[in-house]
Amino acid sequence: MDFLSIIEDKKLGRELSREQIRVFAQAAAEGSVPDYQLSALLMAIRLNGMNAVETAELTLAMAESGAMLAPELSGIPVDKHSTGGVGDTTTLILAPLVAACGGKVLKMSGRGLGHTGGTVDKMEAIPGMRVTLPEDEFVSIVEQVGCAVVGQSAELAPADKRLYALRDVTATVDSIPLIASSVLSKKFASGAKAIVLDVKTGSGALMNTEEDSIRLAKAMVDIGANAGRFVTAVVSGMQEPLGSHVGNALEVKEAIDVLAGRVPEDTPLCFVAVYLGAHMLLGGGQAKTLEEAREMLLHALHSGAGLKKLKEMIHAQGGDERVCDDIHMLPEAPVVVPVPAPCDGFLKATDCTALGRAAQLMGAGRIRKEDTIDPAVGFVMEKRIGDRVQKGENICTLHARTAESAAETAQRILAALTFTDTPCEKARLLYDLVDVQGVHPL
Amino acid sequence: MDFLSIIEDKKLGRELSREQIRVFAQAAAEGSVPDYQLSALLMAIRLNGMNAVETAELTLAMAESGAMLAPELSGIPVDKHSTGGVGDTTTLILAPLVAACGGKVLKMSGRGLGHTGGTVDKMEAIPGMRVTLPEDEFVSIVEQVGCAVVGQSAELAPADKRLYALRDVTATVDSIPLIASSVLSKKFASGAKAIVLDVKTGSGALMNTEEDSIRLAKAMVDIGANAGRFVTAVVSGMQEPLGSHVGNALEVKEAIDVLAGRVPEDTPLCFVAVYLGAHMLLGGGQAKTLEEAREMLLHALHSGAGLKKLKEMIHAQGGDERVCDDIHMLPEAPVVVPVPAPCDGFLKATDCTALGRAAQLMGAGRIRKEDTIDPAVGFVMEKRIGDRVQKGENICTLHARTAESAAETAQRILAALTFTDTPCEKARLLYDLVDVQGVHPL
Repeated sequence: MDFLSIIEDKKLGRELSREQIRVFAQAAAEGSVPDYQLSALLMAIRLNGMNAVETAELTLAMAESGAMLAPELSGIPVDKHSTGGVGDTTTLILAPLVAACGGKVLKMSGRGLGHTGGTVDKMEAIPGMRVTLPEDEFVSIVEQVGCAVVGQSAELAPADKRLYALRDVTATVDSIPLIASSVLSKKFASGAKAIVLDVKTGSGALMNTEEDSIRLAKAMVDIGANAGRFVTAVVSGMQEPLGSHVGNALEVKEAIDVLAGRVPEDTPLCFVAVYLGAHMLLGGGQAKTLEEAREMLLHALHSGAGLKKLKEMIHAQGGDERVCDDIHMLPEAPVVVPVPAPCDGFLKATDCTALGRAAQLMGAGRIRKEDTIDPAVGFVMEKRIGDRVQKGENICTLHARTAESAAETAQRILAALTFTDTPCEKARLLYDLVDVQGVHPL
Repeated sequence: MDFLSIIEDKKLGRELSREQIRVFAQAAAEGSVPDYQLSALLMAIRLNGMNAVETAELTLAMAESGAMLAPELSGIPVDKHSTGGVGDTTTLILAPLVAACGGKVLKMSGRGLGHTGGTVDKMEAIPGMRVTLPEDEFVSIVEQVGCAVVGQSAELAPADKRLYALRDVTATVDSIPLIASSVLSKKFASGAKAIVLDVKTGSGALMNTEEDSIRLAKAMVDIGANAGRFVTAVVSGMQEPLGSHVGNALEVKEAIDVLAGRVPEDTPLCFVAVYLGAHMLLGGGQAKTLEEAREMLLHALHSGAGLKKLKEMIHAQGGDERVCDDIHMLPEAPVVVPVPAPCDGFLKATDCTALGRAAQLMGAGRIRKEDTIDPAVGFVMEKRIGDRVQKGENICTLHARTAESAAETAQRILAALTFTDTPCEKARLLYDLVDVQGVHPL
């Protein structure tokens, strides 16, 4: 098949056939087509779109462009994916909780991207932790412990790998069919059969508006429906960091705090983790109703079974599980200083992307691909949107490598916060549930 | 400037600034930007368009991306460009005629492209003819003879050269701003100050409909207006080959036949050549009105002054000008056979692209860039649209290299012709004149 005719058809706004999409994905994976043709097609897709059938075909074709894992487990392999957040360490909370309830959490995670953190980077803050495991060892830990979290294998979905890199340099990242197929192609290739998606919306998210987030959520649920996999999507708020802790070791500490019961279960991070985890239990077949699933998870939280699972997982992946009992074994930054509130009033809003960027610039994330990250640095937000603040009160504790870095970060954080004189509402956490039946406001 | 932000802006449908367009053209010329970014931008331009100001800026930026010729001539350098036709050898007729009337025809021509012929290939059918001349020699011939026809210099408009090659392999050829800026950037760089454009419309043309052809014509006239150059465009018909002869030596022969007065002056090829030439005399300042210009050209035709100029030009460019007196000195094909009409009736229509393709497949054009062409082969249409035909009568004389090629070509030509029982009209020759005042139906 002539690749040029595929570009031509999409340029003219035509639906691509299954065969054309297979040729596209295969050519991307094999390198048999030059980048300039792929990028012309990517731009045509960005501008003329793809319908649900085309998007599902592209997802499957990219998944099948490399190895397809088919793990032998005594239960349905479940996974959860977030479109990227700040201070969002739900994975390290829900994976052990779901495992404690009998789920099989087969989790492949990414590294930090731009202003958002990555679970793999957070895990590496734990001494000894291995995030690259041979496939059989990974599957065997999931079978025995109930959960394992590793980095994305380079061999999975090679077509996506090439297209993902090209999109970044051709202004074609912001395409819903391309985002949706990229996310799910990797999940399909890793063998997950039930997938819960956390689509973030708000100032810290890829999609800034609820409408766009619902469109992306719907595109991914449609792929699941067309490809015969269980896919549920939750649209959740990212108006401010989800947890109070931002930074790799700091977020591990917060996950441990939650699982150890040191944090009220209605704090946003715990609340969202349990909600997402409940959908994973539904997908995995461990619960019949959402209410039942939530009760199971809260029981695992209160009984300490979740923390026990986290310890087992850390141990199985070579890490020192004693961090769960002594969080001071995690890397700690030398400069810990408060950021005083500049005025009296209420915290009205945050530029959550700017907050994520501030952590990234401290060293918690990479500016360039080859940068190494500093696991210890970051900050703890002491106030949430809606909270009253008094001038001079600590609103954010910085954990910095140097005093200079702390001073710079304080400026960035203050610039990202908006205060008001009048009381204001808390940020909304859950917006919509999107499943095969449709969109359900929450 | 960040190239990605240029792609991003055009993707979002924004107008690009003069500076952005300069960066784009310069980056294309210098190779400082990878092909995959250029092709993403080309597709965004193809789908989101460019307005008249952007298109003029791109034309100038591409023209100025390399050397700009500034020939010292005793008159305004004029040029004519066709968007590509079949059996269209107007250049070899109008260049000598305009020169005979005092014009300075500074003509850079292309080679055959796809199913359409190229003047440079036709000229090379003349023994000894040189189509690559040093700039000073080229300009000196134009000054002394009044016309010279050479191939496009590789040094002119290097940005266009790179983008043209990329467009061909990324399905971004059919963009009016990209076509218009590509054509005129080369003309501007070659030093032409007055340019007459022949925009073909119909089954053998790049633009199939009159509406699209007018849009392209208007885009080019607008560039001229924005860039301060005299640009006039004529929309002319390409429903069938313009001349009866298709093939390189055959078209040279037909041009000589016209200039020698062996062809009535109202035959389509002569009529269109004189009409376009008249606009060149207006642009060059040799005539004040179109009627005056036509009379001057017809006088040059009848007096033999045009044929004399053709001989002078051929001689000056190293060719054997005796071909003008003895056309049998041109390459001749060994197999000359008729194509008999398959039925009684009238020739109603031709698939003119298929006719051009048939000549190309005989060897008159290139299938791949590196192919050499056979100057002798082609065919002579013995009937035009609207002509009555009788079953068995010769409708087309083939000039082929082999009997097999003749047999294949006969099939292709018959497949490209539509006959009818009832009398039908001749094909229209001139559609519209487009100039700075607007569109004038002809």
